[in-house]
This record gives sequence, structure tokens and C-alpha cells, in this order.
Amino acid sequence: MKGIFISFEGPDGSGKTTQIKLLSSYLEEKGYSVVMTREPGGTAISEKIREIILDPENKEMDGMTEALLYAAARAQHVAQIIKPSLDEGKVVLTDRFMDSSIAYQGYGRHLGDKIRTINEYAVAGTQPDITFFLDISAEEGIKRAEHRNKLDRLEKESLDFHRTVYEGYMELAKIYPGRFVIIDASGSIEDVFEDIKGRFEEYAKDHEEQ
Amino acid sequence: MKGIFISFEGPDGSGKTTQIKLLSSYLEEKGYSVVMTREPGGTAISEKIREIILDPENKEMDGMTEALLYAAARAQHVAQIIKPSLDEGKVVLTDRFMDSSIAYQGYGRHLGDKIRTINEYAVAGTQPDITFFLDISAEEGIKRAEHRNKLDRLEKESLDFHRTVYEGYMELAKIYPGRFVIIDASGSIEDVFEDIKGRFEEYAKDHEEQ
Repeated sequence: MKGIFISFEGPDGSGKTTQIKLLSSYLEEKGYSVVMTREPGGTAISEKIREIILDPENKEMDGMTEALLYAAARAQHVAQIIKPSLDEGKVVLTDRFMDSSIAYQGYGRHLGDKIRTINEYAVAGTQPDITFFLDISAEEGIKRAEHRNKLDRLEKESLDFHRTVYEGYMELAKIYPGRFVIIDASGSIEDVFEDIKGRFEEYAKDHEEQ
Repeated sequence: MKGIFISFEGPDGSGKTTQIKLLSSYLEEKGYSVVMTREPGGTAISEKIREIILDPENKEMDGMTEALLYAAARAQHVAQIIKPSLDEGKVVLTDRFMDSSIAYQGYGRHLGDKIRTINEYAVAGTQPDITFFLDISAEEGIKRAEHRNKLDRLEKESLDFHRTVYEGYMELAKIYPGRFVIIDASGSIEDVFEDIKGRFEEYAKDHEEQ
């Protein structure tokens, strides 16, 4: 029995962390064995890499350096957590995965297809079964993130950058219609979760029938 | 006026650090402006990445994670130190560069051509003009490194691994005959340096005549 791999994507402040926790509780109640994780991070090595990426002191970081660090953290995350958990039949919920790199570095930093290649090497065939994209505008995302806490290095980028990232996600929705699910995240936490839950149940039903 | 980019490669314990210092002093006396650097490292960000790579505690590190971390450190090193120094007409001497990744990860860890692709992205066209490979056997290299100090994570690898790395370097010598110079490093420090100095002078003469 192979597990189910679900990634959550979307602008900072779109509510990914909250929705992951709600979905995790829901799935555990239904008897699934759930692993909650996040990127960049998820393993001791990846968390050390995360610290370098997000440290606001590292202002001089080259765009390709950043992209390679994300991919390195991801390779470790897949090898050590995601793949073994899926092999044990668990449901893996991750806060960001390879689409983040394609949107932020590929589109946002205009590094293009190189980012897809690097990430294909990093994930070694382990792709999400469902990707929930929590859809709020870049403006709304920044407003929410500012309200919440001190901004990290990426959150401090210009509004133009965040708009390009958003367009990147919209492109990914067209490229991967099979797994990419756009969720309207402008409503209440409860409404957003109802939508996610419904979409998960649809997937589970299709999956059983196969 | 474009600078000269020289990389030093070879097994641990082959004498790279010593020879770089000797060549640097020699070149400075001749009036060159010299930048000495090393990999993984060479910038504040790259040094932080170096710490993660070489920490003996990170035993569970995936081979692709390691390769991507080396490439990330290299991208930053090129963007922040090597390329700007060459643009200013300086001589850059680096202790290891992309050939190390191809030998250690591509050959040693059997990750193959992916390593070359990742590193081409990382260096963005900045390739060495001369690569001095300090040639001692894998056995002799480990013996010297053991004698010298506590072994780091990579130095603790098996002798088989180090032999495969050595074979990787020999392949690189065939692939890049134009820049790859094999130096017999089994002799005295002085003899090895005489050889390096001679090869540098040949390069400089050819370069002037062009």
C-alpha cells in the first residue's frame, strides 16, 4: 500500500500552516497515519540549510545559490522523510514543495527551466499526488504576513516579485491540472477547510475505485 | 585585461594548500594581484554551507543533497569572489573547484552526468584556465591526511571510494587536456613547486603571445 503525498502551496500568509493542521487532525480521526512536514526543512540537515536561506543577514545571496540550497534541503527531505513515509503507506502533508522553487526561483528570479531540472534531480521521482494552492492575491498575502510577525528575507521582496511568483503558480496550475487544485483562500478558515476536505475526499474516492 | 583562474585538485593530503601558498607568494613577487580561496567555502555564505557538508554528525546525508550543497557554495563563490576578481584582472587560486564535485560525487558516488549539469548552472561559464592536479595515490593521500589531523566526514570514506574518485580525476584529465595539468606530487615540496612554477610560466608565455 502506497501512501498519499499532499503539498500545500501559496503566498506567505495564505493560511497553509493552519489548513495543514486541520487536515492532519481530520485524517488522523479517520484512521490515516499522517506525517506533517515543511520546506525548506523537515530534517535536521534541511533545517540547517533553511537557516542559511532565510537569514536576513545573507543579503548578498546569489539567485542560483538560493535555488541550489532549496533543492539540497528538498533532496534530503525526500530521501529521509517523504519517501520512507509513503513507502510505509502514510499520508504526507508538506508545507511547500518543488512548485515553490519553480514559482519563486524559476519565475520570480527568472532562472527558468534550470530550476525544474535541478528539482527533478532532487526529488528523484517523488511527486505530490495532490497540490493544494491556497489562492490569495500577493497584496493580501503580504498584508497578512506583516500583520503576523517579523518578515524574513524572502517576505521582504518587492510586491512586483510576489506578483511574478503568483503568475508562476498560475502557470503551474495549467501545466499540472491533474494534481494542482486551486483553493479560494480569501474566506474564513472553516470555509477554506471545507473546500480542502471535499477535494481530498474526491481524490480518496477516485483512488479507491481505481 | 582578464585575470587568470587556476584551480588545484587532488586527493586530500596531496599538498594543495602548501603549493597554493608558494605559488601565491611567487606570483605576488612578480607583480600579480593574487586572490587565494578554497572550496567548499570562500564567502561567508559558502563557509556556512561548508560547515554543514563537512560536519561528521551529518552521517545520514543523501548523495544528491551533498552534491547540491557543493554546487550552491560554488555558485556563491563564483558570483561573489571569483568572477569579480577575474574581471579586475587578478589571478585567482582556488583550493578545489568543480572537478572535485565531478570526481567525488559524479564518480565516487555514481551520480554521473547530473553533477556536471548542476555545476554548469552553478559556475555560469566561469571555468579554470589551468587546473593543477596533484597526483598521489589514494592510499598515500589517506596516510598523509591521517598523519596530519582528525579526519572529516569525507576523509573517513572507504579506500574504494577514494580509488573511484582518483579514477574520476584521470577521466577528467582526458576530457580537458587543455587546462588539466597532472603534477607528480610524490616528491619534495620544492620539487613539486618547481614543476607548478614551470607550467605556470609556460601558460603565461603562451597567453602573452596570443
